[in-house]
Amino acid sequence: MTLIDPAGRTIARSDRRAVVAPVVPGSSALVPLGVGEVRLTGGFWATRQRVNAANTLPHIEHWLEREGWLANFDLAAAGTLPEGRRGREFSDSEVYKYLEAVAWELGRRPDAAIETRFRAVVDRIAAAQEPDGYLNTRFGRPGQEPRWSELEWGHELYCAGHLFQAAVARARTAPGADDGLLGIATRVADLVCDVFGEQGIRSVCGHAEVETALVELGRVTGDPRYIEQARLFVERRGHQVLKDIEYGRSYFQDDIPVRDADVMRGHAVRANYLASGAADVASELGDDELQQALRRQWLNTIARRTYVTGGQGSHHQDEGFGEDFELPSDRAYSETCAGIASIQFSWRMLLAEPDPAYADLIERTLYNVLATSPSEDGRAFYYANTLQQRVPGAVADVEEASLRASASLRAPWFEVSCCPPNIARTLASLDSYVATRDAEGVQLHQYAPAVIRTRLEDGEDIALTVQTEYPDDGRVTVRVDADASRTWTLSLRVPAWAEGAVLSVDPADGSTGSEQRTVPPGTAEVTRAFRAGDTITLQLPMAPRFEHPDPRIDGVRGSIAVARGPEVLALESVDLPAGLDDVADMVLDASIAPVVRDGEVLVTLRPRSVPEAPFPYTPAPGAELGDPVAVRLVPYHDWAERGPSTMRIWLPTA
Amino acid sequence: MTLIDPAGRTIARSDRRAVVAPVVPGSSALVPLGVGEVRLTGGFWATRQRVNAANTLPHIEHWLEREGWLANFDLAAAGTLPEGRRGREFSDSEVYKYLEAVAWELGRRPDAAIETRFRAVVDRIAAAQEPDGYLNTRFGRPGQEPRWSELEWGHELYCAGHLFQAAVARARTAPGADDGLLGIATRVADLVCDVFGEQGIRSVCGHAEVETALVELGRVTGDPRYIEQARLFVERRGHQVLKDIEYGRSYFQDDIPVRDADVMRGHAVRANYLASGAADVASELGDDELQQALRRQWLNTIARRTYVTGGQGSHHQDEGFGEDFELPSDRAYSETCAGIASIQFSWRMLLAEPDPAYADLIERTLYNVLATSPSEDGRAFYYANTLQQRVPGAVADVEEASLRASASLRAPWFEVSCCPPNIARTLASLDSYVATRDAEGVQLHQYAPAVIRTRLEDGEDIALTVQTEYPDDGRVTVRVDADASRTWTLSLRVPAWAEGAVLSVDPADGSTGSEQRTVPPGTAEVTRAFRAGDTITLQLPMAPRFEHPDPRIDGVRGSIAVARGPEVLALESVDLPAGLDDVADMVLDASIAPVVRDGEVLVTLRPRSVPEAPFPYTPAPGAELGDPVAVRLVPYHDWAERGPSTMRIWLPTA
Repeated sequence: MTLIDPAGRTIARSDRRAVVAPVVPGSSALVPLGVGEVRLTGGFWATRQRVNAANTLPHIEHWLEREGWLANFDLAAAGTLPEGRRGREFSDSEVYKYLEAVAWELGRRPDAAIETRFRAVVDRIAAAQEPDGYLNTRFGRPGQEPRWSELEWGHELYCAGHLFQAAVARARTAPGADDGLLGIATRVADLVCDVFGEQGIRSVCGHAEVETALVELGRVTGDPRYIEQARLFVERRGHQVLKDIEYGRSYFQDDIPVRDADVMRGHAVRANYLASGAADVASELGDDELQQALRRQWLNTIARRTYVTGGQGSHHQDEGFGEDFELPSDRAYSETCAGIASIQFSWRMLLAEPDPAYADLIERTLYNVLATSPSEDGRAFYYANTLQQRVPGAVADVEEASLRASASLRAPWFEVSCCPPNIARTLASLDSYVATRDAEGVQLHQYAPAVIRTRLEDGEDIALTVQTEYPDDGRVTVRVDADASRTWTLSLRVPAWAEGAVLSVDPADGSTGSEQRTVPPGTAEVTRAFRAGDTITLQLPMAPRFEHPDPRIDGVRGSIAVARGPEVLALESVDLPAGLDDVADMVLDASIAPVVRDGEVLVTLRPRSVPEAPFPYTPAPGAELGDPVAVRLVPYHDWAERGPSTMRIWLPTA
Repeated sequence: MTLIDPAGRTIARSDRRAVVAPVVPGSSALVPLGVGEVRLTGGFWATRQRVNAANTLPHIEHWLEREGWLANFDLAAAGTLPEGRRGREFSDSEVYKYLEAVAWELGRRPDAAIETRFRAVVDRIAAAQEPDGYLNTRFGRPGQEPRWSELEWGHELYCAGHLFQAAVARARTAPGADDGLLGIATRVADLVCDVFGEQGIRSVCGHAEVETALVELGRVTGDPRYIEQARLFVERRGHQVLKDIEYGRSYFQDDIPVRDADVMRGHAVRANYLASGAADVASELGDDELQQALRRQWLNTIARRTYVTGGQGSHHQDEGFGEDFELPSDRAYSETCAGIASIQFSWRMLLAEPDPAYADLIERTLYNVLATSPSEDGRAFYYANTLQQRVPGAVADVEEASLRASASLRAPWFEVSCCPPNIARTLASLDSYVATRDAEGVQLHQYAPAVIRTRLEDGEDIALTVQTEYPDDGRVTVRVDADASRTWTLSLRVPAWAEGAVLSVDPADGSTGSEQRTVPPGTAEVTRAFRAGDTITLQLPMAPRFEHPDPRIDGVRGSIAVARGPEVLALESVDLPAGLDDVADMVLDASIAPVVRDGEVLVTLRPRSVPEAPFPYTPAPGAELGDPVAVRLVPYHDWAERGPSTMRIWLPTA
């Protein structure tokens, strides 16, 4: 059987080097199924991918031009820097992330007009590259600070990393394309290896990113030098090679070597990008000690430093992790990019060690961080994802880049605008985070309507169609589209919250071999010589449920969150009955289970009135509760789509 | 009778312009008793004043030299700026605050050696003043940014304000001194009036401070122009005269005019300094509307935006207030300077409107913020005063200025070192915040061993001696030391927490006219024709008590604080029984009242163990409690004096 991917191309992907995905380890327990092998066909995520392609990508290009971040490359080419340069020191990286997003999108759905615009941007970048390969609009030219003179804050290697990732995306989705992007990237990478090699500057970039990018560039090009350079960067960090700063060296994870650390700390995006790079290095070099250090950090970080949304980063000041259990809703930062970076780290860990906990966290973060940031139309974004809005946020000016990471509703752009293009590249490559294969079969980690076509190492072709209305409904049906030549195993993740899930197998040939069983959280497997038409159904329990916080999380003590499937729910003031206008005055009656009525989740709340006191600390607590009312909750990712409101995820109990 | 103050000088202070205090309104309901009228003679605060004089002032001078902030003036005089200038843009102000502190200290206790050092510093400052009066080491010289070009962040007027306050302190404590400081200050002030007058730059300083200082300089010199300039600054702010910034214009209170605002917001020090200046302007101009706007802001801020310690400022990022009830312990900032600024604001309000609530807050802030910051030896300080220490802080390097406002134990100095000299000037002038007079008599607002000598408007001389071991003991005895020529009223503040206080009057001539009564929180008054030897005793209830938070404060829900008298208590890990090492694992048994044993407050705690879970949000909360143990609490201001520890003020209940 010849397999044809959804774009009409023949695929033969048993060679993992041919996989079209952001992360393709040279060896790993699981091999990702890339673009063409998995095609999301509808539902929650395909809708967002369509909005991303139709609205978000043009929106980003518009703002990159408008803010002059693209024009910085033209100034560099014309030799007129630094006059006229606009944007922060890392603005080049937004252009690269945009390019990466477009590359993935073109890989999913070729489009001549977009291809032309992609190449036009690449040409502008190419023109700015210096003869020795250096490429950065912020440093190194007359009137600018010297190259590599500001490693703590300069973001030069960070920008290079994003360039490499764009080039990798392009090389994988359009192998052999003559646009020159891969050559630009390798010239920069060669320079980085010359300058920062064993005999070079023995330091690192304040913002990790280049590590994971170098490994992937090494995987694409086959050049081991890039992977060795990534290894050097990973090993150097943690030995106080950067200057101390107000936030401490933990801010850039330069306090403890990666292999010695027990938990993630400091800036949450940096920490997760670093961990991703370290995981890549561990994978390429078979470094089990490093891999186990990362697993330890991942486990401790999830158990103690992660919000119920999957979000990470408790501090506004340093965009950083707090201490263990320091997870106040009040000042949750939960940066969108930290969520994306966490997905990247968890995905690499999952490929290395097939523990469904990794995919559980990815799912939680996808639905409650990645899906929360962009507006429904994909033209406005949350940078920080607070868990509690005390005062209705201002409506953001659609013509103004926001100076602030928070304090307004979703904004069209930011002075520091890392999040919009990061969302775009993630959505455009999201098909690649759904399923994997190993020698024994295929593993489904995320549930969405999809067509799956792949080939196992021994040449066994596998074709599946996933149908589901998840997360609105818990029924996931996997139809086998091709007869097997041997037995193989279909693995399905049963989320940790899904106690009581039921797995059914309905063979194409009627009742023979049909089965139905309850499957505990973890991994459910079906091993058979599948026949085309066989249907495997996973029924996940979708009743809304209470989630209780660890009592060591002071910020949400005495409160309960409500979740349904992978979605965390939120109480928004616009849903309160007439006469009640602030979610802060509502208390949950936890003795009454939430119910679903007409597709909406309702909880029982009671309004609380507190006597006004001159000082809010008194000998006896005083509050009166009013009559119970049923109030609907909305998925957190949908909040603030109906104008300014107050909002809470954590509901205090009576 | 001739009254001799404790320094041996004759006093005749019925003329309020002769009062030796930081704040001397031209007219006000209450007139402060200044240095010489009140002399703290022992106990809690006199001890700290001695440490301040003996250790803190030389420590500050040492660091001002060491960091080059004093030498910046020498560079300015030599014309060699900007090369070699050290310190942040506001470093001049630390020198001025130091001078102010020394001036107050010299006023309390003349010392020829210190006088000489004071004058030496003044001479260095004088040499740096430019011919037109401009004085700032950071702006305006060749190679520096122009004067007044950076009003948002430049702190030029802020520095000028601290210079004025130093000059005011000197003018009041050493009237007619020939050191030239007052002249330096008035030349700067004249320039400020020229540049920022009605026809000048219609803007303000990003950091309020000059407003209150200009009013006091006007009071000292009698020049109404300074008060008019203060009025202009107060009225201009809030009309978006400064640029928008990442934290929003509320950061420098430029979002809403002072007279329109309902609550304090933005940077907590700026907000309180501004409010202090506005209160001074309202007082001088008899502006009732402004005064009432400030009272409204004060009331709302205390009811909704103040920590149990009296501390203010919930955010690290912008050192700012949070929204109403956004008061997490986790990230309490509660900057020492914000506490001091809050005392300044409340004191001005108290002089204008004798509501004991103002003095209540001052007391709470004195004992739990001002007293917390400095170490016992007065050579190390907290900049931020967290309410919860999750991980033992590092011991600060005594030879290193800290880059950070938090994250270590008390540090000797900071890159931004506003707090140490602010503490020093406050302690050195603290006698002036204890008592006031009006036409009817004397009001005692704070309780400490003291000698009080003053004269009412009509010439009535009053002499009192206060004896107490407060706050260790609740008995406050006021002995009348002079026969009255008429009836007058002694007013005693009964703190809001002191339900059941008892007032006794014991006349010198035995039982005639003796009385004893329970007095409710508020003000207790005794009106009589006092005789020397009459004794008034206020017995305040000092049993430790629980304080319950308003249920709208999410950050401390389900928790209780313990206080005793004015002191908030804290649980510190070094006081846990063997085998228990983290305060986070302890739960309060609130059914058992705290007890005092051998002078120590004991509460009943139970260790809590939480089963380890991969994700800290679970279907059912699980925690086991161990056997109850009696554990001592320490006054919060004493915490972290026994090495690194974890600490909590708010104790979760079982």
